[in-house]
Amino acid sequence: MSELTDLLFGAPAVDAAFSDRARLAAMLTFEAALARAQAQVGVIPAAAADPIAAACEAKLYALPELASQARQAGNLAIPLVKMLTAQVAKDAPEAAPFVHWGATSQDVIDTGLCLQIAQAGDALAADQQRIERALTTLAHEHAQTLMAGRTLLQHAIPITFGLKVAGWLDSVRFGHGQVTTAVDQAVRLQFGGAAGTLASLEDRGLEVSRALATQLQLPEAPAPWHARRERIAALGAALALQIGVLGKIATDLVLMMQTEAAEAFEPAANGKGGSSAMPHKRNPVGLVAIRAAAVRAPGLAASLLAGMAQEHERSAGGWHAEWEVLPELFRLAGGAALHAAEILEGLELDPARMRANLDMTQGLPFAEAVTMALIPSLGRAGAHALVEVAAKAAVTQRRHLKAVLSEDAQVGALLSATALEDLFDPARRLGAAAGFIGRVLGGPA
Amino acid sequence: MSELTDLLFGAPAVDAAFSDRARLAAMLTFEAALARAQAQVGVIPAAAADPIAAACEAKLYALPELASQARQAGNLAIPLVKMLTAQVAKDAPEAAPFVHWGATSQDVIDTGLCLQIAQAGDALAADQQRIERALTTLAHEHAQTLMAGRTLLQHAIPITFGLKVAGWLDSVRFGHGQVTTAVDQAVRLQFGGAAGTLASLEDRGLEVSRALATQLQLPEAPAPWHARRERIAALGAALALQIGVLGKIATDLVLMMQTEAAEAFEPAANGKGGSSAMPHKRNPVGLVAIRAAAVRAPGLAASLLAGMAQEHERSAGGWHAEWEVLPELFRLAGGAALHAAEILEGLELDPARMRANLDMTQGLPFAEAVTMALIPSLGRAGAHALVEVAAKAAVTQRRHLKAVLSEDAQVGALLSATALEDLFDPARRLGAAAGFIGRVLGGPA
Amino acid sequence: MSELTDLLFGAPAVDAAFSDRARLAAMLTFEAALARAQAQVGVIPAAAADPIAAACEAKLYALPELASQARQAGNLAIPLVKMLTAQVAKDAPEAAPFVHWGATSQDVIDTGLCLQIAQAGDALAADQQRIERALTTLAHEHAQTLMAGRTLLQHAIPITFGLKVAGWLDSVRFGHGQVTTAVDQAVRLQFGGAAGTLASLEDRGLEVSRALATQLQLPEAPAPWHARRERIAALGAALALQIGVLGKIATDLVLMMQTEAAEAFEPAANGKGGSSAMPHKRNPVGLVAIRAAAVRAPGLAASLLAGMAQEHERSAGGWHAEWEVLPELFRLAGGAALHAAEILEGLELDPARMRANLDMTQGLPFAEAVTMALIPSLGRAGAHALVEVAAKAAVTQRRHLKAVLSEDAQVGALLSATALEDLFDPARRLGAAAGFIGRVLGGPA
Amino acid sequence: MSELTDLLFGAPAVDAAFSDRARLAAMLTFEAALARAQAQVGVIPAAAADPIAAACEAKLYALPELASQARQAGNLAIPLVKMLTAQVAKDAPEAAPFVHWGATSQDVIDTGLCLQIAQAGDALAADQQRIERALTTLAHEHAQTLMAGRTLLQHAIPITFGLKVAGWLDSVRFGHGQVTTAVDQAVRLQFGGAAGTLASLEDRGLEVSRALATQLQLPEAPAPWHARRERIAALGAALALQIGVLGKIATDLVLMMQTEAAEAFEPAANGKGGSSAMPHKRNPVGLVAIRAAAVRAPGLAASLLAGMAQEHERSAGGWHAEWEVLPELFRLAGGAALHAAEILEGLELDPARMRANLDMTQGLPFAEAVTMALIPSLGRAGAHALVEVAAKAAVTQRRHLKAVLSEDAQVGALLSATALEDLFDPARRLGAAAGFIGRVLGGPA
Repeated sequence: MSELTDLLFGAPAVDAAFSDRARLAAMLTFEAALARAQAQVGVIPAAAADPIAAACEAKLYALPELASQARQAGNLAIPLVKMLTAQVAKDAPEAAPFVHWGATSQDVIDTGLCLQIAQAGDALAADQQRIERALTTLAHEHAQTLMAGRTLLQHAIPITFGLKVAGWLDSVRFGHGQVTTAVDQAVRLQFGGAAGTLASLEDRGLEVSRALATQLQLPEAPAPWHARRERIAALGAALALQIGVLGKIATDLVLMMQTEAAEAFEPAANGKGGSSAMPHKRNPVGLVAIRAAAVRAPGLAASLLAGMAQEHERSAGGWHAEWEVLPELFRLAGGAALHAAEILEGLELDPARMRANLDMTQGLPFAEAVTMALIPSLGRAGAHALVEVAAKAAVTQRRHLKAVLSEDAQVGALLSATALEDLFDPARRLGAAAGFIGRVLGGPA
Repeated sequence: MSELTDLLFGAPAVDAAFSDRARLAAMLTFEAALARAQAQVGVIPAAAADPIAAACEAKLYALPELASQARQAGNLAIPLVKMLTAQVAKDAPEAAPFVHWGATSQDVIDTGLCLQIAQAGDALAADQQRIERALTTLAHEHAQTLMAGRTLLQHAIPITFGLKVAGWLDSVRFGHGQVTTAVDQAVRLQFGGAAGTLASLEDRGLEVSRALATQLQLPEAPAPWHARRERIAALGAALALQIGVLGKIATDLVLMMQTEAAEAFEPAANGKGGSSAMPHKRNPVGLVAIRAAAVRAPGLAASLLAGMAQEHERSAGGWHAEWEVLPELFRLAGGAALHAAEILEGLELDPARMRANLDMTQGLPFAEAVTMALIPSLGRAGAHALVEVAAKAAVTQRRHLKAVLSEDAQVGALLSATALEDLFDPARRLGAAAGFIGRVLGGPA
Repeated sequence: MSELTDLLFGAPAVDAAFSDRARLAAMLTFEAALARAQAQVGVIPAAAADPIAAACEAKLYALPELASQARQAGNLAIPLVKMLTAQVAKDAPEAAPFVHWGATSQDVIDTGLCLQIAQAGDALAADQQRIERALTTLAHEHAQTLMAGRTLLQHAIPITFGLKVAGWLDSVRFGHGQVTTAVDQAVRLQFGGAAGTLASLEDRGLEVSRALATQLQLPEAPAPWHARRERIAALGAALALQIGVLGKIATDLVLMMQTEAAEAFEPAANGKGGSSAMPHKRNPVGLVAIRAAAVRAPGLAASLLAGMAQEHERSAGGWHAEWEVLPELFRLAGGAALHAAEILEGLELDPARMRANLDMTQGLPFAEAVTMALIPSLGRAGAHALVEVAAKAAVTQRRHLKAVLSEDAQVGALLSATALEDLFDPARRLGAAAGFIGRVLGGPA
Repeated sequence: MSELTDLLFGAPAVDAAFSDRARLAAMLTFEAALARAQAQVGVIPAAAADPIAAACEAKLYALPELASQARQAGNLAIPLVKMLTAQVAKDAPEAAPFVHWGATSQDVIDTGLCLQIAQAGDALAADQQRIERALTTLAHEHAQTLMAGRTLLQHAIPITFGLKVAGWLDSVRFGHGQVTTAVDQAVRLQFGGAAGTLASLEDRGLEVSRALATQLQLPEAPAPWHARRERIAALGAALALQIGVLGKIATDLVLMMQTEAAEAFEPAANGKGGSSAMPHKRNPVGLVAIRAAAVRAPGLAASLLAGMAQEHERSAGGWHAEWEVLPELFRLAGGAALHAAEILEGLELDPARMRANLDMTQGLPFAEAVTMALIPSLGRAGAHALVEVAAKAAVTQRRHLKAVLSEDAQVGALLSATALEDLFDPARRLGAAAGFIGRVLGGPA
C-alpha cells in the first residue's frame, strides 16, 4: 500500500514475490515458456522461441508506460504483449507474430500469479519454521511454569504457560497446513485462450498445455479456470485463517504484557517499542502489527469470496477485484509471520510474576477443586453453596480461601488438613496439562 | 432467522441439525456420554450413569426457561446443567452430584456443536450427490451443444454448454471437498474443564477423554481448543466457498435466462417463479435464493475469522459470536445446495437458441480464428488490422464477417474459400473443449 | 436466529418489530392503506376499501402456508396477496379484484419493512436514552476519579474515569445520531408497480402515491427505489457503527474487569454471570454479548453493501440478501443497547483500586511530565535520556521513580523538591481532562 | 497497492492526497502549526516557531529511513519527530527541544490524516459534479426513450432510459451526500497528548488546542478521539456506499452492453477496451474497474468497523489497521468516480436497439396492462388466467400477444380494438415515469 508502512506490516521475502517487477517477470516467464513449449511441439517455428524468450526480461519494460496503457486496456497483459511483440520485432521480426500465440490475457496474468504464489508460499514457510521451533522450545521449557488460566478475562484455575504455548503451536501448525494445502491447490497452469477452449491451437491445445506445464513446472488443471476462482478464494481464506491464529497469539501476549499482568514482553531490540511521549514505556510494536493484520484479513478474505460470482467464461469485475487483494493478504500474512517469529524467538517472560498473579486471588482459583471434592458428600448444590459462601468471605475479608475454609467445621469434617493443602497446591491441580502438551509436541495432530 | 423464509433460504435436512431442539439434544448427548464414560472408567459411581443418561432427553426441558436463564448465565450450558441435575435428582438423588462431572460449559456446547456439524455435513452430502450427478449428465449430453463463449459479458468465441457445465462440476467438487475436509477437521471432542487442564479429574483426565470420545464416536483433539477456533473458522470459510461456487453457477444461469438470451430456464414446478404483476414472466426463484446466499456468505465467513482473536483460555465475545453465525452458514449452504440440485436436475435448455445467439454476431466470434490464420503471413499487427477493418465493416453494414472477408483480395490470396468456410464453422473451432470435458469427467482432479 | 439465544443477543422491544407476525402485519398495513388510498382518489370502487382493510389482519393468515408458498414464489408478497384476495372474496367478492391494485410484490415488502424499521428505531431510542443518562451521571460523578490512562494496553499517564466515560458518551451520541439519521433517510414509501413506473395506474400514479403516503404517514421517495438500496445499506452501516461504539465501551469494561485490574464490574443481578465450574467467578455476561455483536456486525453490514449491485429495475439476489440481514443488525443493535443500558446503570466501580493500579507503576506514568519539565534545560534527547535511565533504575530496583530522581544531582539542580513533588501528583497532572469532560457534557458536539 | 494498477483502479487527484509524500507533508503541517500555535500563546518561546516551521518540508526527509525506523517504533511519527528535531537542531539548536511539544504520535498522525481526508474529499467532489451533470443531461434527453424494464433479469414492462438514469442520479447524489457529511464529521483536530489529557500543557491545553485548530483551519473535537473511531469508520462506510452506488450503475451498464442487449457502450477512446485475442470486441474496461471496486469496498468498510473495539486510551491494533484501509477506500472511490464520470459523459447509446429489445417479447410486457384492464370484469384470477393462456399461446406460436388476444372472443367483448391497441402502445404505458424523472431532476430529494 505504501512504502512507508511496508516494513511494518509486510515481510520483505513475501513482498518480493508480489512487487511490480516480480509481477512483470512472472508474466514474461509465462510468455517465454509458451514460446518454448510451442516451438517444441511444432506449433510455432522452432526459431521463434529463442528471440521471444530473450525478450522476456522484465527490465526491458517501463512500468509507467505499462500502467498507463493498462488503464486503457483493462489489464496488464494487453500492453505487455504489445511491448513484447515490438521488442521481439526489433531483432527477430519473423518471430514477433508468434508471441503470445493462442493465449489470452488472463492466461498470462493467472499463470504469472501462480508463479508468484508459489514463491510467496516458500517465503512464508521459512518464518513458519522459526515460529514452530520457538513455540516447541517454549512449550518444553515452560511445561511446569504455573500461571493463571483466564476465562472471559478472569482468573479461573491454574494452567502452565507451556500448555498455553502448546495450544498456540497446535493452531499455528493447522493454519500453516491450510495455507500450504491452499497454495498447492491454487498453483496451476492457466491456459485456455479466448474462451477456455484453446480454439486457436485447434487440435494441439492439450499437447501445448502439457508442454507448457512442463516448462513451467506447474500442474495442469483439468480445464481452464478463468471464471472459477474457488482455489484463489480458498487461498485467501487460508491466509486470513493463519493471520487469525497469529492474531490470537498476539492477543494473549498483549494481554500478558499489560502493566497489571507484566508476565511477558515483546523483545526490545534497537529501541523497538519506545514511546515518543513516555520514555519508560515499552510498546508491543510487533504484536500490534499482527493484531492490525488480524483486523484487516477477514474483510480481505470476504472480498475474494464475494468476487467468486464471476460471469460466464471471463468475468466483468470479480477477477479484477482479486489482483490487489490476494497480494495484500500474502503481505499481511508475511508480516504477521515475521513479527511472530521475531517475538516468539526473543520472548521475555517473567515466571515469578505469573506465579504472583496466580496467587493474587488468594486461593479462589482452587474453589472448583474444593467444590469437586465436596460434591460427593454434599451434592453439587450443597458444595457450591458452601464454597460460594467461603469465597465471598475470603473476598470481603481479604483473606486466603484456604484459611477461611480451614475454619469451617463442615469442611473440617470432610477434608483433612493435608487434603485441603493438596487442593490448594497449584502444581498438583494441573490435571492433564502435561499430557496435553505431550500430545501436541508428539507431532502434528 | 425467520420461519417465513426458512424454506426459501434453507434446507430442511440441514436445518434439522441446527434447530433449537437439536442443539439441546446434542448437548444432552454429551452429558449422557460423559456420565457413561466416567462410570466406565470409575471416576463416578457406576450406578450414576443410567439415571443421568435417562434424564438426557431434550423433550424434558423447556426452551423458554432455558432461553431466559441463558441471558443471566451467558450461555445455555449453565441453566441446562442445572435443570438436568434437578431432573436427575427427582429419581436418583445420589446420581445428581455426578452430572457434568469435571466438565465446563464450553465442553458441552462445543462438543454438542460438533455433533450437529457432523449431522449437517451428512445432509449436505446428499444434495451434493444430486448436483454432481446432474452436472455429469449435462456435461455428457451437451458436449457438442454449441453456444457463445462470453467474456466480460460479451460474445467471444464458441464453446459448448458441456464445457461450461464441466467447469461447474470441477468447481462444485472442489468446494464440497473443502467442506468435507473442513467438517472432518472440525468435528472433535471438546473436553478440557474450566481452563483446559481437566484439573477436576486430577490424573484421570486423558483416560476419561478417551472413553468419552469413544462413547461419542468423535476423534479427540491433542489439547482442548476452547479459545483456538481455526477449525471452526476454516469450516465457515469452506461453506462460504461452496456457496460461492453455487453462486457462480447461479449467476451464469440467471444470465442465460435473461429475456434476451433465453438459453436456459429454471424448472417451473407448481407455478414456481410466477410474477404477481406479470403473468407471462417466469422468475428465477431458486437461482435468486442461491445468489442471495452468495451475497451473504462472505460477510458471515468474515465474522468467524474476525472472532478468532479469542483471549487466553476462553474468550469474552469471539466464541459467542460463532453461535449463530456457523449455523447460518450451514443453513445458507444447505438451501443453496438444495436449490441447485432441483434446478440442475430439471434445467430446461434451448440449444437452438444457444446456436441462434452464437450466430447473432454474424461471424465476429471467428475473427480470432481468422486473425490467427493470417498472422503467419501478415504478422500480428497486420492480421489484427485487417480483421479489425473487416469486422467494423461487417458491423456497420450488418453483414456476416465471412461475406466481408470473402470480398477482400488480400484474404483471397492467403486463404482458400474452403479454408475460410472452415474458420467460420463453430463445430470445428472448439479446440480442446471436448478434451477438457473428458479430463473433468474422468474423475476428481 | 434461535429462540434459545434471542434474549441473550436481542432485545424484546426491537425484536418485536421484526417478528414474523410483525412482518406480516406490516405488509397487510400496506395493502389496507393502498385500498383506502385508491378508494379515496377513485382508482378503485369506494366500496372495495373496507372489505380489503378488514381482511388485513395478520392473525387470519397461517405462517407455515405462507412459508411454503414463498419458496415457490420467491417472496412472501405473492402468496400473501393470493391469500388476502381469497379472504376478501369470502365476504366481498366484488372487492377482491382490487386487492393489491397496481402494486408489485416489492412495493408491499419494502414499505412493510420501512414500517418495521420505524418501529425498531423507536425501540432503540428508548435504550439510548438510558445509556446517555447513565453515562452523563458517571462522567459527572467521576470527573475527579483518578485512574491509569492506558495506551497499547500499558499504563501511560493518569486520566480520570470521568474523562473515559465522557469519551464514551460522545461516541454513543454520534453513533445513535447516525442510526437516527439513517432510519429517517430509509423510511419511505416504496410504490412503483412492476418496473417502477406505476404503469397500471396510468396517469393516476403520483396521486395514488401521495394518498398512500399520507395514509401510511410515510414520506415519498422522488422515484421508486426497488433496485437502489443505498439507504438500506447506509442504515445497516449505521447500526454496525453504533454496535461498534458499544463494543469499544464493552472492551474497555471487560479489560477493567480483569482479575488483575478489578476496577469495574458488570452488575450481578439474579446470579448473572455465575460460572458453572468456578463458584467464585463473576463473568461479564452482558459485556460479552455486546462484544459478540461487535464481532458479527461488520460482516453483516458488508453483506448489505455487497448486495447493492442490483440489476436493472429489480434485482436477482441482492434484494433478497437484505431480508434477514437488516433485521439481524437491528436485533444485535437492540441487544447490545439493552445490555449496555443495564450495565451502565448498575456499573460497580472500585475507585480505590483504580488509584492503586495507577500507583503500581511507582511513578513511571509521570516520567513524561518530568521529561517535559527538563526539556527546556536539557533538550529533548537529554531529558529523555536522563529520565529513561532513572526509569530503568526505578524498575530494576523496584523503587519509586520520584525517589530515584530525587537522588539525581542534575535533577536536583534543575527542579526543586516541591516542583518534583508536584510533577508526581496525579491530581495536578490531569491537564485538560476536566475541560474535555465539560465540553462533552455541555451538549452534543 | 501497486504502481502498475494505480491508474486503472485509482484516480490521480485522490491518490495525490494519500501518497507517501502527502502523508509526510500533512504530518509536518501539523508540527509546523503546533509550533506556531504554541509560540503564539506563549507555551514555547516565540523564536522557536519559525525554525521548526522551516524544517517542516517533506522533501527534507528520506522515506526509506522513515519506513525502516517505523518498523522499530510502531508508527511513523516517532522517527519523523526525531528527524525533525535533528533537522531543527542543525540551524536552531535552541528551538529543537520545542518540536512536537506536548503532543503524542497519534496527534500528528490523525490530524495529518484529517488534512489528507479533506483534500481527498475535495478531489472526489470534482468528479461527482461531472457525474451529476452527465446524468442530468441523460435523464433529460432520454425521458421518452423507451426500453424494457427488467426485473430479476427478465423483461417486465416498458420504462424509459431517462427513468433509469434519474434513479441513478438520485442514488449518486445520496451517496455523495453521505461521503460529504462523513468527511465533514471526520475532519477534526486530534490533540490530546499521551493519554488524551494534554497533561504536558498543564492548564494551557485547551488554549493551545484552540490556537492549533485555528492555524490548521480544522474544527476541534469536544475531546480527543484517539481510541474512538466512529467517525473514521462512518467515513469508510460512506465511501463504500458511494462505490456501491456506482457499482449498481456499472452493473446496469455492463448488462446493457452485453452482446445480446447492445443498448449502451462504454466510450472507446484511444483503443480503450480492445481485446488481445478478439479484434472485434470492445470490453467494458472502466465499468469493470468500477465493479471490481464494488466487490472490494464492503470488506474494507467491514475492516474499519471491526477495528473499532479499540482498547482504553490508545489501541493495540485497531488504529493501526486503519492506516492503509481508509486510503484504499478513498483510492477505490476516486477511481470509480473518475471512471464513472468519463463513461457517463461519453456514453454511447442505441435507442433503436432498446426499442427493438422491448419489442422482442412480442407484446408480453403488456400482459399486465391487459390483465389490469380485465380484472374489473373478470376478477383477478380470471383475468390472470385468460392472459396467461394467451401469453403461453403467443410464446408457443411465436406470435404477438396482441394478435392472439384480438382473436379471443371474451377479450373482444370486453375491450374495443382501439382499447387493445392502446394497451400495447409502450409510450402510453409509462404511467408516472415522466413524473418520477421530474421529481428527481427538480432537485435533491
